[in-house]
Amino acid sequence: MDVHEMMLGMGRQALDASRDLVLCNARKKNVMLEEMAEALEARRREITDANNIDIEAAKAAGLASSLVDRLTLNSARLDSMIAGVRDVAALKDPVGDVISRWIRPNGLEIVKQRVPIGVLGIIYESRPNVTVDAAVLCLKTSNAVILRGGKESAHTNAILADILIESGKRKGMPEHAIQLIRTPDHEAVRELVQLEGLVDLVIPRGGEALIRAVTEHARVPVIKHYKGVCHTYVDESANLAMALAIAENAKCQRPGVCNAMETLLIHEAIAPAFLPAFAARVEPRGVLLRGDTAARAILPAMQVATEQDWYEEYLDLRLAVRIVSSVREAVAHINTYGSHHSDAIVTESEAAQKIFMQEVDSATVYVNASTRFTDGCEFGMGAEIGISTDKLHARGPMGLEELTTYKYLVQGKGQIRG
Amino acid sequence: MDVHEMMLGMGRQALDASRDLVLCNARKKNVMLEEMAEALEARRREITDANNIDIEAAKAAGLASSLVDRLTLNSARLDSMIAGVRDVAALKDPVGDVISRWIRPNGLEIVKQRVPIGVLGIIYESRPNVTVDAAVLCLKTSNAVILRGGKESAHTNAILADILIESGKRKGMPEHAIQLIRTPDHEAVRELVQLEGLVDLVIPRGGEALIRAVTEHARVPVIKHYKGVCHTYVDESANLAMALAIAENAKCQRPGVCNAMETLLIHEAIAPAFLPAFAARVEPRGVLLRGDTAARAILPAMQVATEQDWYEEYLDLRLAVRIVSSVREAVAHINTYGSHHSDAIVTESEAAQKIFMQEVDSATVYVNASTRFTDGCEFGMGAEIGISTDKLHARGPMGLEELTTYKYLVQGKGQIRG
Repeated sequence: MDVHEMMLGMGRQALDASRDLVLCNARKKNVMLEEMAEALEARRREITDANNIDIEAAKAAGLASSLVDRLTLNSARLDSMIAGVRDVAALKDPVGDVISRWIRPNGLEIVKQRVPIGVLGIIYESRPNVTVDAAVLCLKTSNAVILRGGKESAHTNAILADILIESGKRKGMPEHAIQLIRTPDHEAVRELVQLEGLVDLVIPRGGEALIRAVTEHARVPVIKHYKGVCHTYVDESANLAMALAIAENAKCQRPGVCNAMETLLIHEAIAPAFLPAFAARVEPRGVLLRGDTAARAILPAMQVATEQDWYEEYLDLRLAVRIVSSVREAVAHINTYGSHHSDAIVTESEAAQKIFMQEVDSATVYVNASTRFTDGCEFGMGAEIGISTDKLHARGPMGLEELTTYKYLVQGKGQIRG
Repeated sequence: MDVHEMMLGMGRQALDASRDLVLCNARKKNVMLEEMAEALEARRREITDANNIDIEAAKAAGLASSLVDRLTLNSARLDSMIAGVRDVAALKDPVGDVISRWIRPNGLEIVKQRVPIGVLGIIYESRPNVTVDAAVLCLKTSNAVILRGGKESAHTNAILADILIESGKRKGMPEHAIQLIRTPDHEAVRELVQLEGLVDLVIPRGGEALIRAVTEHARVPVIKHYKGVCHTYVDESANLAMALAIAENAKCQRPGVCNAMETLLIHEAIAPAFLPAFAARVEPRGVLLRGDTAARAILPAMQVATEQDWYEEYLDLRLAVRIVSSVREAVAHINTYGSHHSDAIVTESEAAQKIFMQEVDSATVYVNASTRFTDGCEFGMGAEIGISTDKLHARGPMGLEELTTYKYLVQGKGQIRG
């Protein structure tokens, strides 16, 4: 069967499943989720065996150790993945919630109600736990899902999907509520994102190449979960001790994630005091600073930052540093070079706060806190399918509500339009 | 200058304007809108002259009279267009509204606030009043807009845009808050929908060819305002008099619009009573019925409906009729052939209502009312940019709120992640 036919078939089956999922109430879906958690627990050995095949293949292919680490499902990560399924079961199901309700002068009652989106496609890279996370979040919200993981974790993804599908079906999950694209063919992604009328939304989670491959061919809506080029701006009025702690945390607490700081902007008035103290604090932790001319005038040992550095998502301990002469210059830098993810100002000035909050065009804007808090759990959503760097439908952390849409239910008593 | 460079320039200017629009408060925007209404009033003669050029050209080109009518801005339509500008000025500005606000256990205060989307592209067909409607709704919500109207109304669109831009700028509107693509080149639309990083959303309003041209090439988010293949389902338990009035209204009150009924579904148990009474009521008004075999068994004079009829948006007095044997068969028909716009059930049965409301996958689902109510004004939104047949971001009538997105503003006191 060719890839086009295969994907069309998966799309149609997903649509059928989505119609059945609308009929599954919260209790029934939670029974499926509990069964999945138990099945994953019971079949840990199979998961580990499959994961070892992927790990060996990755090592044999000479993949970087950071990549091998990302696809490794050790015992602690398995525990956390299984606990995550139970956490999702425990969350409140948003489907059916009334967002608003009003009555028109002609007596029509309009109810805006949360409903599932329908069929989602989730495209992700090497972390195999996303197979489980994405599948259970979609099931919880009565969406059918077509998953496409990275080829490096193909064996792990396959066994995880098998376990979810088999256990879910034992408790009445519709046959094709969860599907995994099992061919490594790139063509499959292209076909998936062109399934107009079958797939309602595609969420790509990953780097530039993945996002480009998706948006270039997409004819269905896409919400990008793209890189995080996050900034911390230390204003002239910042509390120095607070600024040092926030900037250190934003850079060092977990440098490999999308909400870590990649560029530090410092007001010229505070830079002579702040920058040497900051360097003294983070360089022992391995941070490598790259500065513009003004920053290097203060710390000449710093590497030179080029224009390209301002766009860079290092995901490691490198940090670009730029001196600015005003909050508006910081805002302009962030809006020009950033990825509209998460950006912070450290300041004691209400005026500077206000400008920064209003004018920074990012999903999450912080005042006097670390950008590391951009996360569904930290926001109190309980779980997230990812963090949207787009503006439409969902922006920032996407939890269960963001996996729903709404419809208007209009109740009449025979009203006609005059 | 080539079209690519031209559109890139327009996109960059729109982005710059959108940054300035964020700084315009509601009062300032309303002053601009009032000035626009006055300028349109003062320059009616110029508008009519330009419109006459378009009308003459359309007639000379042999366009259908319905198309000539659509592009005609007579005095009453001009009045209504100008009143519309003042109506929008009078609406509440949603920008800055707090959608929700909560405090996390660590003391972080999270505020989810409405903000403008940024830069919108609106692509529409022959009705020139859309130039004004779309521009003022975007300005009201602090979005920059790039407009692209139908070539048949090019002269009218040009003078309307000139008036809006000149009058808005007199009251401090940013230079490129409103732009009109003035080249008839199809290439311009293709370039517009590929302006990633500059254009945040494109809304195509129109028929199948327009929508296809947009989605085929789009790399930016699109919300489609597509056709309305709307259904009324007369359930076996329907109140006969109510069903007759609703079905007549849905078909006849204004057949040329997207929320008018195109297909009538009738339960087999009520069809022998309903169908002849309905035909007797609407045939004198010019309605032409096309039925399936079962419908024609009741009214043999009816034309034959083919498979293609179920997909058809007639926009005139033709009506497809199908007999079904259950509410679920009606739902399946609607989900298969409909355009997910507006669909109604007429029933006295709570069970049938519930099935219909839950399972019909459309933006607006009616119980015992005419589909003709799907409209921003009828919903109480005050105005609409159109009616989304998509599910993401906005579904159904799109008013001012749907022209906004949100961002998270997180206020801390030095919090870092542990």
